[in-house]
Amino acid sequence: MTAQLSLPSIRDLVASRRTGHSLDGWFYTSQDIHDLDMSAIFTSHWLFVASVAEIPEPGDYVTVDLGLYSVILIRGDGGEVQALHNVCRHRGSKVLNDTSGSVGNIVCGYHKWTYATDGSLLHAESPAKDFDASCFGLKPVHLKNAGGLLFICLADEPPADFDEVAATVEPYLAVHDIAHTKVAAQIDIIEEGNWKLVMENNRECYHCDGHPQLICSLFPLYGYSEEDVTKRLRPVLHRYQAAEAQLRETCAAHAIPVAVHEELDTRVSGYRIARLPLDGAGESFSQDGRSICRKLLGTAPTARLGHLALHLQPNSWFHFLGDHAVTFSVLPLGPSKSLLRTTWLVHEDAVEGEDYDLAELTRVWQATNTQDVTFVARTQLGVTNPRYEGGPYSPTEYQVEAFVNWYIKRLEHHLQAS
Amino acid sequence: MTAQLSLPSIRDLVASRRTGHSLDGWFYTSQDIHDLDMSAIFTSHWLFVASVAEIPEPGDYVTVDLGLYSVILIRGDGGEVQALHNVCRHRGSKVLNDTSGSVGNIVCGYHKWTYATDGSLLHAESPAKDFDASCFGLKPVHLKNAGGLLFICLADEPPADFDEVAATVEPYLAVHDIAHTKVAAQIDIIEEGNWKLVMENNRECYHCDGHPQLICSLFPLYGYSEEDVTKRLRPVLHRYQAAEAQLRETCAAHAIPVAVHEELDTRVSGYRIARLPLDGAGESFSQDGRSICRKLLGTAPTARLGHLALHLQPNSWFHFLGDHAVTFSVLPLGPSKSLLRTTWLVHEDAVEGEDYDLAELTRVWQATNTQDVTFVARTQLGVTNPRYEGGPYSPTEYQVEAFVNWYIKRLEHHLQAS
Amino acid sequence: MTAQLSLPSIRDLVASRRTGHSLDGWFYTSQDIHDLDMSAIFTSHWLFVASVAEIPEPGDYVTVDLGLYSVILIRGDGGEVQALHNVCRHRGSKVLNDTSGSVGNIVCGYHKWTYATDGSLLHAESPAKDFDASCFGLKPVHLKNAGGLLFICLADEPPADFDEVAATVEPYLAVHDIAHTKVAAQIDIIEEGNWKLVMENNRECYHCDGHPQLICSLFPLYGYSEEDVTKRLRPVLHRYQAAEAQLRETCAAHAIPVAVHEELDTRVSGYRIARLPLDGAGESFSQDGRSICRKLLGTAPTARLGHLALHLQPNSWFHFLGDHAVTFSVLPLGPSKSLLRTTWLVHEDAVEGEDYDLAELTRVWQATNTQDVTFVARTQLGVTNPRYEGGPYSPTEYQVEAFVNWYIKRLEHHLQAS
Repeated sequence: MTAQLSLPSIRDLVASRRTGHSLDGWFYTSQDIHDLDMSAIFTSHWLFVASVAEIPEPGDYVTVDLGLYSVILIRGDGGEVQALHNVCRHRGSKVLNDTSGSVGNIVCGYHKWTYATDGSLLHAESPAKDFDASCFGLKPVHLKNAGGLLFICLADEPPADFDEVAATVEPYLAVHDIAHTKVAAQIDIIEEGNWKLVMENNRECYHCDGHPQLICSLFPLYGYSEEDVTKRLRPVLHRYQAAEAQLRETCAAHAIPVAVHEELDTRVSGYRIARLPLDGAGESFSQDGRSICRKLLGTAPTARLGHLALHLQPNSWFHFLGDHAVTFSVLPLGPSKSLLRTTWLVHEDAVEGEDYDLAELTRVWQATNTQDVTFVARTQLGVTNPRYEGGPYSPTEYQVEAFVNWYIKRLEHHLQAS
Repeated sequence: MTAQLSLPSIRDLVASRRTGHSLDGWFYTSQDIHDLDMSAIFTSHWLFVASVAEIPEPGDYVTVDLGLYSVILIRGDGGEVQALHNVCRHRGSKVLNDTSGSVGNIVCGYHKWTYATDGSLLHAESPAKDFDASCFGLKPVHLKNAGGLLFICLADEPPADFDEVAATVEPYLAVHDIAHTKVAAQIDIIEEGNWKLVMENNRECYHCDGHPQLICSLFPLYGYSEEDVTKRLRPVLHRYQAAEAQLRETCAAHAIPVAVHEELDTRVSGYRIARLPLDGAGESFSQDGRSICRKLLGTAPTARLGHLALHLQPNSWFHFLGDHAVTFSVLPLGPSKSLLRTTWLVHEDAVEGEDYDLAELTRVWQATNTQDVTFVARTQLGVTNPRYEGGPYSPTEYQVEAFVNWYIKRLEHHLQAS
Repeated sequence: MTAQLSLPSIRDLVASRRTGHSLDGWFYTSQDIHDLDMSAIFTSHWLFVASVAEIPEPGDYVTVDLGLYSVILIRGDGGEVQALHNVCRHRGSKVLNDTSGSVGNIVCGYHKWTYATDGSLLHAESPAKDFDASCFGLKPVHLKNAGGLLFICLADEPPADFDEVAATVEPYLAVHDIAHTKVAAQIDIIEEGNWKLVMENNRECYHCDGHPQLICSLFPLYGYSEEDVTKRLRPVLHRYQAAEAQLRETCAAHAIPVAVHEELDTRVSGYRIARLPLDGAGESFSQDGRSICRKLLGTAPTARLGHLALHLQPNSWFHFLGDHAVTFSVLPLGPSKSLLRTTWLVHEDAVEGEDYDLAELTRVWQATNTQDVTFVARTQLGVTNPRYEGGPYSPTEYQVEAFVNWYIKRLEHHLQAS
């Protein structure tokens, strides 16, 4: 028991991972593993941090705090988006201190050093005689725009395979036209759990009985194969199969891609994309499955487009529907604390109170998030217990295992490289 | 001075302990010593955690959080009490999340794995084909019931001498019949001090001038021998001697054991038990010493039974009276934070508002606990000061020294074994 | 990047300091550097902690918490001031638990051990037979009174050069007669930043555009040489030069010293003292520069005495004016948390509401402190960013560099000695 109470070598921990079982408790509780996750995962991979809808006009910016880093995403005068490290080149003050806003130039509030939206230093008062302003621009951050979704990477050499993933995903996103959406709501939740518990919770529907609002429209079959389906879920499966047939027909008629692409643990930028039917009216996340925004997204030919489910390693997932979209991202705040950011996007011309009711739009995922907060917090408490040992996954949790596989492979890669 | 600011070797610290003097400051402030205390003391010894009165009916449970551990104490259908680790065998969720309650089976709220009250796994949905439910019961925890007091031990091999202590103590408890009490009140206090400071404060009455409510009924002579008693305390001593003679007479008449057993630092399961007179009317903890619950405990022939004082290493003490009992346990929450749980027990048939007034029942020990909170917090601040050095105990503090002796011996034993 | 995330050797960090540039981020964020600062700086140097005005009468005391230490400053019956470690010699309780008060003897509240104001133990109840009270007095702390300002040093051998500094400074203070002042207000602010950021912020006026209230009376030219002054500041410089000429005339007429002494980084007890003109009416910190206390300090011949600016390494600065004085001290509370204590002193006979309005007296520095809190907090956030790198000081920030020089030299000295 004593041995359990001090962290074994991280290499040993990684090597001793037991396939088919949940991870050892240290992975969810140790400060050292948290630090490793920050370097091996969060500063080494592409991360979804915002959509273009959050910075629609020149000068609009958001700041994203990621561990000890802070990054500015700002739209320049030419409309292009820039990502910059949010730290002044003089004495290091954080430059932009709000989470979002709009500026002409980027001015540090301390000694008024003034930067252009591309980061170049425009003015510093009373400099030394040999001062060369061209050496003191805000440092750039790698940025990709994939179909309106903004990804940053803090690594010197970002993973190269992301472009392939973006090329696969963009045709699926086209019908939803994210570039012409607006933010209807954005809610941050502090989860009392390790970021991996938040992700694992997202990657299975074995617990979906605990989400009464969600299962009105989302079939609780995520991760189930036809043989896995229990007697209790058999009627659900039949409704699902009928809805799926109809969805395939609609998509075929409008050249909307629908096939599953799943490379969750077989590439660096692991992902899964699939267009899936919804229950009830099949249109949206609502009690009866009917749409909750009258103005449809992009070129949607009908509200009944099911949901385009996109899952990305390490930390994001998405539901794109005919009438709105919801994006989710998870950022670690510590070994046992994480930020879950949920953003609801609607057509940029949709009018609140007219085309949609905000409470109704956010109802299902607010309730679901709140339920998940409890699941994650209780699991964090449990895996912290020295008598916890990893238990076996159910076959329906295969995507949890894929996440864990991906994670362990990335750690192995990082530990070999360092 | 610099040397003082980083922890010396723990073996050196233990070896350099100065008999007759309070411990070095590191013992009360260091995270490493806290971790050592958790393994050498709290997961190696028998700990009082509850009385049977807290779980009277089948299915009733309490959960006890002890460091990173959480333990379920539950009464099974046959009436027997079980202790189980409170962590699901699937993915580790904490199973029971309330501090007390009543259940049929033990169901994990996350994925509905369902356990019997003896811990065996009754049901897990959609398991893998080779899943063997018999391998996934909740893990058991060692448990002893000594006269209605429940003790757990988290060690693989619990100290064997506890049964001797239980055998000595049980005849003293018999007249109070704890098995037929109920909880009148239970109050948890967070002390801003190391658990050992809370214990040391309990083990002397050198500070009892600071407890005006308590010294109405409890003679402030704890730890004093007749020679130690100062002129100021002489009249108290004379009242004490008279009350003691009368108590001995009563007990002799009803075959109630009264002799002192004291093995505080001479065995693994250190303890002291003694039946002692009370001041004033001699019946209970009240302003005039009269009883505060009309319904007496067990087979008490009179309210005037003094108090049966039981002190156990490492972390509990008790006062059993004719009309009620009070139990105290201390659990470390960190190097400078502890939980003190105080529980007032009355006869199971006593009726609040009729047989006793709750405010009156709890008044003396609530006031005393609050006063002790201040003493402990100020001592924690002081021993954290790098210029603190252990000072000499007064002869009246010999039980503080016995506690420290016991503690240092247990550390030595642990360090030798590991 | 990984390398940046774990602390390099402190000796390497100190050795790699880049002259003319702000310090590496570790100096502001690391717990190890904080611990080093506590021993190399705060327990090795003379620190301003209070003025005599705070303990005017025999028995008056203040307690000063400094890292893990707590020190009592108490005025004895003979009027002399004593500094004592605030930790009981029995079992270590913190003896005096209020920040200020008045006592006859110093009595520990736990077991009533009683000390005289000089620290000697007067009484301990029920001691052991061989107890020698003369060995158990409260431990003394080194103390200096420089012109009414009280300095303590926690080192065994305090820096010897402090007496020279005191001898230089005292003639400047004489006209303000601090020994006959009283505390009009004392305000503690928690800064969310390392103590060095608070100090660096104090040592330059490059940011004084951010202090609209302060620059009504304080010329924002601190650290500027005549060549540094920008076109925008040229009119301010001319006003300054006229005011300075008049101030020199006044001081010459009354034999008040006015010359600059500056040894910020060229001695152990680094300091700078200078009497400088104020803007507007030139008398005090107010919107129009007029005095805000009718009763002048000491022997001030006129309210128009400018401000005597005193800056001491490591952690204090002062403004002494004709009508009042303001003292500032900074104490680290952790790597990213500091206490700024600001005290306003007026003539001991000045009457609030009659001679001065308290809100008016404190307005400028309360506003300025609040603005600085934001500057410091944002800089702390920025220097914590792994992508922060030390940037170049402007020539006007030469006193920031002097502070950093002094600091690095003192670390080097400490590391060589240990």
